[in-house]
Amino acid sequence: MADKQLMTYEVGEQMNLMALLKNVTVRVAKNGKQYLDLTFEDQSGEISGKFWDASAADIDRFQAGRVVRLAGKRETYQGSPQVRIAGLRLANADEPHQPGDFVVHAPMKASDMEEQINQVVFEITNQVWNRIVRFLLAKHRKAFFSYPAAKHNHHAFEGGLAFHTLSILRLAHSVVQQYSSIDAPLLYAGAILHDLGKVIELSGPVSTQYTVEGNLLGHISIVDGEIVSACNELKFDLNSENVVLLRHMILAHHGLMEYGSPVRPRLLEAEVLHQLDELDASIMMMTTAVEKTSPGEFGERLFAMDGRSFYRPNEPQAGGPAVK
Amino acid sequence: MADKQLMTYEVGEQMNLMALLKNVTVRVAKNGKQYLDLTFEDQSGEISGKFWDASAADIDRFQAGRVVRLAGKRETYQGSPQVRIAGLRLANADEPHQPGDFVVHAPMKASDMEEQINQVVFEITNQVWNRIVRFLLAKHRKAFFSYPAAKHNHHAFEGGLAFHTLSILRLAHSVVQQYSSIDAPLLYAGAILHDLGKVIELSGPVSTQYTVEGNLLGHISIVDGEIVSACNELKFDLNSENVVLLRHMILAHHGLMEYGSPVRPRLLEAEVLHQLDELDASIMMMTTAVEKTSPGEFGERLFAMDGRSFYRPNEPQAGGPAVK
Amino acid sequence: MADKQLMTYEVGEQMNLMALLKNVTVRVAKNGKQYLDLTFEDQSGEISGKFWDASAADIDRFQAGRVVRLAGKRETYQGSPQVRIAGLRLANADEPHQPGDFVVHAPMKASDMEEQINQVVFEITNQVWNRIVRFLLAKHRKAFFSYPAAKHNHHAFEGGLAFHTLSILRLAHSVVQQYSSIDAPLLYAGAILHDLGKVIELSGPVSTQYTVEGNLLGHISIVDGEIVSACNELKFDLNSENVVLLRHMILAHHGLMEYGSPVRPRLLEAEVLHQLDELDASIMMMTTAVEKTSPGEFGERLFAMDGRSFYRPNEPQAGGPAVK
Amino acid sequence: MADKQLMTYEVGEQMNLMALLKNVTVRVAKNGKQYLDLTFEDQSGEISGKFWDASAADIDRFQAGRVVRLAGKRETYQGSPQVRIAGLRLANADEPHQPGDFVVHAPMKASDMEEQINQVVFEITNQVWNRIVRFLLAKHRKAFFSYPAAKHNHHAFEGGLAFHTLSILRLAHSVVQQYSSIDAPLLYAGAILHDLGKVIELSGPVSTQYTVEGNLLGHISIVDGEIVSACNELKFDLNSENVVLLRHMILAHHGLMEYGSPVRPRLLEAEVLHQLDELDASIMMMTTAVEKTSPGEFGERLFAMDGRSFYRPNEPQAGGPAVK
Amino acid sequence: MADKQLMTYEVGEQMNLMALLKNVTVRVAKNGKQYLDLTFEDQSGEISGKFWDASAADIDRFQAGRVVRLAGKRETYQGSPQVRIAGLRLANADEPHQPGDFVVHAPMKASDMEEQINQVVFEITNQVWNRIVRFLLAKHRKAFFSYPAAKHNHHAFEGGLAFHTLSILRLAHSVVQQYSSIDAPLLYAGAILHDLGKVIELSGPVSTQYTVEGNLLGHISIVDGEIVSACNELKFDLNSENVVLLRHMILAHHGLMEYGSPVRPRLLEAEVLHQLDELDASIMMMTTAVEKTSPGEFGERLFAMDGRSFYRPNEPQAGGPAVK
Amino acid sequence: MADKQLMTYEVGEQMNLMALLKNVTVRVAKNGKQYLDLTFEDQSGEISGKFWDASAADIDRFQAGRVVRLAGKRETYQGSPQVRIAGLRLANADEPHQPGDFVVHAPMKASDMEEQINQVVFEITNQVWNRIVRFLLAKHRKAFFSYPAAKHNHHAFEGGLAFHTLSILRLAHSVVQQYSSIDAPLLYAGAILHDLGKVIELSGPVSTQYTVEGNLLGHISIVDGEIVSACNELKFDLNSENVVLLRHMILAHHGLMEYGSPVRPRLLEAEVLHQLDELDASIMMMTTAVEKTSPGEFGERLFAMDGRSFYRPNEPQAGGPAVK
Repeated sequence: MADKQLMTYEVGEQMNLMALLKNVTVRVAKNGKQYLDLTFEDQSGEISGKFWDASAADIDRFQAGRVVRLAGKRETYQGSPQVRIAGLRLANADEPHQPGDFVVHAPMKASDMEEQINQVVFEITNQVWNRIVRFLLAKHRKAFFSYPAAKHNHHAFEGGLAFHTLSILRLAHSVVQQYSSIDAPLLYAGAILHDLGKVIELSGPVSTQYTVEGNLLGHISIVDGEIVSACNELKFDLNSENVVLLRHMILAHHGLMEYGSPVRPRLLEAEVLHQLDELDASIMMMTTAVEKTSPGEFGERLFAMDGRSFYRPNEPQAGGPAVK
Repeated sequence: MADKQLMTYEVGEQMNLMALLKNVTVRVAKNGKQYLDLTFEDQSGEISGKFWDASAADIDRFQAGRVVRLAGKRETYQGSPQVRIAGLRLANADEPHQPGDFVVHAPMKASDMEEQINQVVFEITNQVWNRIVRFLLAKHRKAFFSYPAAKHNHHAFEGGLAFHTLSILRLAHSVVQQYSSIDAPLLYAGAILHDLGKVIELSGPVSTQYTVEGNLLGHISIVDGEIVSACNELKFDLNSENVVLLRHMILAHHGLMEYGSPVRPRLLEAEVLHQLDELDASIMMMTTAVEKTSPGEFGERLFAMDGRSFYRPNEPQAGGPAVK
Repeated sequence: MADKQLMTYEVGEQMNLMALLKNVTVRVAKNGKQYLDLTFEDQSGEISGKFWDASAADIDRFQAGRVVRLAGKRETYQGSPQVRIAGLRLANADEPHQPGDFVVHAPMKASDMEEQINQVVFEITNQVWNRIVRFLLAKHRKAFFSYPAAKHNHHAFEGGLAFHTLSILRLAHSVVQQYSSIDAPLLYAGAILHDLGKVIELSGPVSTQYTVEGNLLGHISIVDGEIVSACNELKFDLNSENVVLLRHMILAHHGLMEYGSPVRPRLLEAEVLHQLDELDASIMMMTTAVEKTSPGEFGERLFAMDGRSFYRPNEPQAGGPAVK
Repeated sequence: MADKQLMTYEVGEQMNLMALLKNVTVRVAKNGKQYLDLTFEDQSGEISGKFWDASAADIDRFQAGRVVRLAGKRETYQGSPQVRIAGLRLANADEPHQPGDFVVHAPMKASDMEEQINQVVFEITNQVWNRIVRFLLAKHRKAFFSYPAAKHNHHAFEGGLAFHTLSILRLAHSVVQQYSSIDAPLLYAGAILHDLGKVIELSGPVSTQYTVEGNLLGHISIVDGEIVSACNELKFDLNSENVVLLRHMILAHHGLMEYGSPVRPRLLEAEVLHQLDELDASIMMMTTAVEKTSPGEFGERLFAMDGRSFYRPNEPQAGGPAVK
Repeated sequence: MADKQLMTYEVGEQMNLMALLKNVTVRVAKNGKQYLDLTFEDQSGEISGKFWDASAADIDRFQAGRVVRLAGKRETYQGSPQVRIAGLRLANADEPHQPGDFVVHAPMKASDMEEQINQVVFEITNQVWNRIVRFLLAKHRKAFFSYPAAKHNHHAFEGGLAFHTLSILRLAHSVVQQYSSIDAPLLYAGAILHDLGKVIELSGPVSTQYTVEGNLLGHISIVDGEIVSACNELKFDLNSENVVLLRHMILAHHGLMEYGSPVRPRLLEAEVLHQLDELDASIMMMTTAVEKTSPGEFGERLFAMDGRSFYRPNEPQAGGPAVK
Repeated sequence: MADKQLMTYEVGEQMNLMALLKNVTVRVAKNGKQYLDLTFEDQSGEISGKFWDASAADIDRFQAGRVVRLAGKRETYQGSPQVRIAGLRLANADEPHQPGDFVVHAPMKASDMEEQINQVVFEITNQVWNRIVRFLLAKHRKAFFSYPAAKHNHHAFEGGLAFHTLSILRLAHSVVQQYSSIDAPLLYAGAILHDLGKVIELSGPVSTQYTVEGNLLGHISIVDGEIVSACNELKFDLNSENVVLLRHMILAHHGLMEYGSPVRPRLLEAEVLHQLDELDASIMMMTTAVEKTSPGEFGERLFAMDGRSFYRPNEPQAGGPAVK
């Protein structure tokens, strides 16, 4: 019989399962001994725990990226799930031990996301934008479909960048249907490229960190530079309105200068892209938090939502459940 | 042959048409003589002009709400259309002279909007919310389908309140399709009621002003009080979660306390309602401004968009026009 | 000989007395063992301490709300009083063991406060306001005279809500004497009702928490809803100026929208109520802090006073003591 | 029969009375001719008006500080009273023509204010503070009892500085009665000196301007320097706690650093002084504005109250009038 | 005898001289007639004036960019110099009439600035930065040495961009001497390029306006794109640290994100560049304002210095003049 | 062979050297035992460490200000250097044990700094400023040349106040050379006195704390009071422009009111002083941080630089090292 997964245990239940060591930090306890601060992960989510009185051998053995057999008790600490570790050992050769099998990933396959995004590219009927988008998607294809959209917060999982992009495109499609004043190709092109700079700003899908380039340039200027390079390659005039409009879409997409956009949206489509970006990111964060919350309770505080915690109503309010 | 309408004249063209006097202010010029600061309106929009050296008879004659025959020249002042008045007289009995025929109104008929909103009410399957919504729509039906959504800014036209509500419902419908975590009945009920307090905050569809109640209570607390009264009437328990959730949807819909919400959104649906409200309002404002702007120019500064002006691109960027 | 009380021990002195367990939190120490983070309370104030190496029996025994015999040493940690626990046991049957005898409460008896507030109600000569105030005081009488005014910060003790209200009324009386432009009945009615919503926003006088209603509606909208319900009951017209003015007094009393008032004060009396509310709350907080501070020192940082700490001068500055 | 006074005319009524020219500005109209922008004053208040087509002789004749006979019509412009001037000439020798008879002044005589303030000085039982206060009151006696408290906003009339100080002392007396933790002598000493620097910051009671010293040092540092000089004169040690506490009272009285206090209040008494200062100033501003407003209307926007306008209720709310 | 120049006339003096029409705006006076709002310029500075009752011929004749003979009287309006125009005609063929002879320009010749900047380029010993700087200086040489540094505010004159750049380089040189921790080549390279994007953001040295590219991209992203293009051309790796550091210098030079930098300075040299940029710009603005102010007075409010006005002391404070 | 110094050990290296106990805090570990939180200092810098299971004798022995022999291992905790203590004992009589030999101090000798500052005083040719500066330098000479410039942050070492002042004077000298509009004597006088109040605001060069006077008055008002006292002593008129200008220089030097300046700079020289103060302080903080950072890394977050961390490039960018 297959193990239960990390997030399916109840508080107080005994756990016993295979999991990936996602993060490992060696710390010194107040009694002077070393211990390990661990994060375990499988496809159902992640949970943290402490391994006390770690020997040098333990520290050598339990490194990030390895698969382990974990025994312990499911607890809660300040609204977040925790495990009180009772036993821990490395996976045997006859147990599942491929790290890739234990990583949270987007709810769609990369190939499906790619297909859907390619469908949208067909709708970018302006040839300048179409070619720049295709050039850059091709150049960064592998990273774009595997990177997360962020280190923490929303879409911080494998494939999160493409999944977030696709969600915005679906919202954009609805908005274009409803408001005829919007230039659909411009909105779609901007949406596809808006976060592409994250493939250089972040280190990758595992143990994601900011790169030096990410810290010193930021993903907005990174992708802006990529567009300039693409234009150089494709022999597009940097001063043509087509190029200027597309660069503006990316530069302005954080909406406010204090959030890192060097210019505020001055095109209808740039303002819409900014708002849809925020809408998708915040629904994703709130949904993730509410799903981890018990009915009738407020969940954990969300840093990226100004520290607010969200309430999960007690019972289905309508015919169906409040959180389907 | 029918007259051209106000907004169809080119800059520099001679105008000659029937129009409604929307606003009339008597002022004193620097030379000590009185003049009239006028706003003319017909179904195509509105335009302002000055009537110099107004006699007491002129002041008596040209009152807000009357229909006039206007002759003059179409000009522009700081990006806004203006008319330099050459002639002005009241409409004759054989000319169109019904004020109602010259008012800007929503692009849908009230009966159509009502029908579509009623369709959504059916989808509010929670009976507490459904009955409160129906009670309040019935109580304020006439005003709800004729009032503007604001004094200035977005949807400041007859029927604007219902039209804005309906636009949000359409966006909400798309979002509900895309994100299964959202409780649709709660979002729909909140969306329908969120601005209903404006039927008391504002004075009506013509020469709209803030009422004393509007200034001292604000539309958020006004509609909150209406919900409480409805519950009293319908014998619903004010302390039940259903009622508390619905009140929260309305109280939180401005998103930030500094924008007048006494509490910030703490429900997924309340945050989404806030963002969709903002999305629809800003698309409406930007579209109106861009339509009045010449290609290759930045339009007027929009106070409610932090004073930004928006650019209208020079030419169709794609196969079709940028602003269809 | 009676025990000394909690706050009467000097730093370094051996303590031995009966006290109430106000809060109990079970935590895990860095050595992996459980301990109890305790707050002790008696009528002189409260003090915290840690009970190390707690057994399951200890955890079961020492629950919040029980009276204990505490032995230990009085210490100080970052400006706050602490006890280093040497011994702890439950009260015997022949020792004082009624929790109610160990709770901090307002410096006046509830019956005295009620009498004084009733005197003020007589001065509310406007019959609409008078009847609403009496209706709501009667409806929430018990809670109003026992609840604290806050979870932390100022007046966080049994009866604090009524005591704070009474203090504001006394200030209001002085101000009314000095400035004849103030409508005394309106100011008094607003003052009595301004924080009444806390009887629903908070859970009660013991282990005070925010209720779900408190988090989702806030005490301002709660009492506003109560006034609407009272009007419905008393058959008062919600649109009459009398009702609108009274609702405004409550809605505006936080002064700024970012502090949760949906409208800013637009009546002289509303602005005065806001300032007197702040004046009483801050004097109470500063007085409590200064009393706990040694002469010549700055006390603890007060979160609700922007993190400032206050200085207690070295010696009586005048003929009498600086802090009488 | 005596003339009516400036503020006793109804809107639309013909005016004919003696008044002081408080401010005179020569401007050029859009037709290229000069006109005078005038403010008239008598003991009832002030009103503005324009004198069109001013000749060189008019400009020479109508200078600030002269008494004139004014004829015209009482009007209103954006909520402020105005006069449309029909006739204007200098006062004859047999008409009232002493400027001092037409100046708005405090509602108490200077000698009465001085007597009441001296009474409070007796209650400053700390001899250091008592002697500094008496030294500085004596040094600046004449200016202190004649200067306004501000150029605009609150207490901008002759004697306003002393009257504002006295009002705060009365509030302080009530607060001292109610809260025993307050050191009364310190609060009184701080209250008397807090705005004394205005006798150097401002130019005087007529045509009040900021001096260069006022602009470069501000009244807070000016009075702080005066206290230091007084200590030098009286041989008080600048490093003694008594002196430091008193200086803190003055330095901190604006409450926030962004309002010009180099330090925030860190004494209970300093915080209370700040709040009472604000309370008296705002009641004075609101009362003045509401008295000029018609029942059922919102008055002029008050710059120093964040641009808010205040509502004057329609009718006496209680047995007596809303604004007595 | 040569004419006096614009800024050498005293207030009240009759003016009679040749000048350039820098800006011309046609407006309608309150009496319904057209007038011209003019700005005159010569090498001493600029002054504004109004030409009343302009005929169609006047409007056609007096266009921006033409040289005129101006007669009138020197006046002051709200602290700014003005001329009351008595006579105005176009320059005759035998009078000076070359616009270029009447333009304010930098106090150094373009060739001298170029020589000094080239000297600094030699000190950029890092070959990557050196070659990028030389590439871009060569590409935009003509504009760089003729454009102003801004539309208004500081260095808004011909050659202002290069002069401002050179001033920063001189400050940078002093700082490099004093603090050995600074990487001089990086600071110099960043300083030379930091505002180079203004050659595309602004329209040119005459009647300077923001271009569409300037509004939609901003000069920071424009020059960042130019660096990327240069690297493409020069075959430099965009991901090399040398390129990333240089791009960071430019991106971060506004210091705060709300001022348009997409990233805040994270290199010592980037922070220093930001501060030196601000130091030079503010000294230039204050100096210009103080020179126009009479001793003992405060000058005009400087928008870019938060609306502050600056004081010009009454007399030489030391052995020499306060403003040399 | 001489010991290595504190900051010259590599991470992981065994340490064994003499050092000063700079700070000692007794704390209670989570296991209930006491430990010492220690900061060690020598002329190379400072490092922290924990001494576990401290006995009463240990606590008595290891007091701040004593010199000890320290053995342990050099580690890193959150980017800051730490030592894991293996052995600790007091210095023997035959070992170095003078605390003064282990203190970080300015990179110049006090006598050299004094000489250089005196050179600048000669350039203050205005006799009023010259005499005030000399009077106050003489009065506070000893403290001025030994105090730090701050408790934390920049120049927090012995002699830091004078060294920071001298650095600003060197910058000021460069600026005066470059911009002739600046009144050098005024700038120099302001620079010398601007932070002099710190000799009263702070407790001294060892274990620096804020004094009560520092907390209640702040160094800006303290030095302002010192200038007033000096003028009293020197019989200078407080109302003369010379005195007012000098006081303004000091009062305004924090630039913004929210940073504690009661007035903003309104003199060119005051604004320049503010900017040079900030420039020197920030270069010092960044340099100190970068020197502690490994190449290719970001250093610790600097609280006084808005929490930013700064990057140390990987390799010398130019011919010479990036950080010389």
